[in-house]
Amino acid sequence: MTVNADSLAVLLAADRARVDAFLARVFERRRPAAPRLEEAMRHGLLVGGKRLRPLLVYLAGRALGASDETLDAPAAAVELIHAYSLVHDDLPAMDDDDLRRGQPTVHRAFDEATAILAGDALQTLAFEVLACAAHPRLPALILTLATAAGRDGMVGGQALDLAAVGGHPDVEALATMHAHKTGALIRAAVRMGALTAVEEQDPRVAALDDYAEALGLAFQIHDDILDVTGDTQTLGKASGADAAREKPTYPALLGLEGARRRAGELTEEALVALAPLGEAGDPLAQLARYMIERDH
Amino acid sequence: MTVNADSLAVLLAADRARVDAFLARVFERRRPAAPRLEEAMRHGLLVGGKRLRPLLVYLAGRALGASDETLDAPAAAVELIHAYSLVHDDLPAMDDDDLRRGQPTVHRAFDEATAILAGDALQTLAFEVLACAAHPRLPALILTLATAAGRDGMVGGQALDLAAVGGHPDVEALATMHAHKTGALIRAAVRMGALTAVEEQDPRVAALDDYAEALGLAFQIHDDILDVTGDTQTLGKASGADAAREKPTYPALLGLEGARRRAGELTEEALVALAPLGEAGDPLAQLARYMIERDH
Repeated sequence: MTVNADSLAVLLAADRARVDAFLARVFERRRPAAPRLEEAMRHGLLVGGKRLRPLLVYLAGRALGASDETLDAPAAAVELIHAYSLVHDDLPAMDDDDLRRGQPTVHRAFDEATAILAGDALQTLAFEVLACAAHPRLPALILTLATAAGRDGMVGGQALDLAAVGGHPDVEALATMHAHKTGALIRAAVRMGALTAVEEQDPRVAALDDYAEALGLAFQIHDDILDVTGDTQTLGKASGADAAREKPTYPALLGLEGARRRAGELTEEALVALAPLGEAGDPLAQLARYMIERDH
Repeated sequence: MTVNADSLAVLLAADRARVDAFLARVFERRRPAAPRLEEAMRHGLLVGGKRLRPLLVYLAGRALGASDETLDAPAAAVELIHAYSLVHDDLPAMDDDDLRRGQPTVHRAFDEATAILAGDALQTLAFEVLACAAHPRLPALILTLATAAGRDGMVGGQALDLAAVGGHPDVEALATMHAHKTGALIRAAVRMGALTAVEEQDPRVAALDDYAEALGLAFQIHDDILDVTGDTQTLGKASGADAAREKPTYPALLGLEGARRRAGELTEEALVALAPLGEAGDPLAQLARYMIERDH
């Protein structure tokens, strides 16, 4: 199967709708113990979002033969982790952001304590949703998600990011920070999709991991570029925010053109890594190209 | 086997040492991505603590025949969840506490952002540790822990608690809040111990759940009583803190003697619930008595 840009866009929209419908069901037909907390969780989760990580779960899983139904829970779980991290990242003690995806952040729409708790409960819900699906490889799926989310992954990267503000890291230190902060969860998404389909020992799992590693960094570099070149309305958040906070970025270290070149090289690496999958990897290849061409 | 108060004290100390040794190994032989985050996690986890929840995992599991080795991971996981909740509960936007177990709270010893992240990573680590053990009933164990920790359990209870400050809840509303905030995780500890040993359908699992429900509320009422009658040094936190914050408590609603009577009735209920276990339930019975006699 080959996929052109138009059919990819259709697929992306369909998968976004699919995971959103699944996530909506997680909040339906309930009598929540704490309704305001529940609203804050929905606000953090359901307001907009590219749903990139769920897309990676679906595309990687399908490439190795998993059914859509078995991919819903891992796709939702990885998005729940992503959403919780954004809620906490926006807190006054962290990035202190008022806007996220063009909407008030959770602590602005509710309050700080509720935002802390909503983030906490979104993280818990990720593991609950995943465990509910009771996949035969659940231990590996939980481990993949937890390792990527925790001290050796995303949260470790956020701590490195905090430590780097105002400092002057080199390109390598910046790459290490991003490999943890955003890369780990992107790799986990791809790996969870793959593990839903096949055993860990399947060589295509390792190929997909190489793909995800390159893709994740390309994605982050492109995000840094958009922060310089995008406008606030298209991004749904304040542009130029990184520079205003003296956050180290790729354009600052490599120049805008250098950063674009590096993102292009990494995308090429991602495409090469897909070779063992043959045509089954085409949608993932299209996604990699799409991700460094997007404008938000 | 019957257990008197002395041999129970020995058992409690031995199990505290056991879970602490297991938790210490979770932090050994590592090159952490973010050393300061790791230190903050250890501070939140390893500084003192009664390790009540791990004890419940061990005692409930052994009562149904589980080996100590299979109980280590569930015991550690439930303590990691408890520790994360304390780190976040102490934050300025929540209870704004400076002391915990006689030590500076994590955001005082480090900083607020690091405390948020350390709590987040402790939660993730709970699920990682549990998944690592790969118990045959892992889906049920993860579900038990996640349900108890999340929006329908502990975090839901914290949100109810926030909403109740300055209000005037009745005894029933207070019991609902506590059943979520502290009761859910105590029940999860007992249930995880039980599920490590036997299938969910075993009637002793339901008996232990009744035990844990009564025990959890008795424990909380006794905590409220200690807040009135204890001194700051013995408690390791400021006594009278609940009243100072206008937090609703059992002594405030029932009077000190009424609260003591209620705790005693609940302990009796807990003991009755243990009947189907016969002598195997004796250590759990001793623990229930111990918990309303402790002075900190």
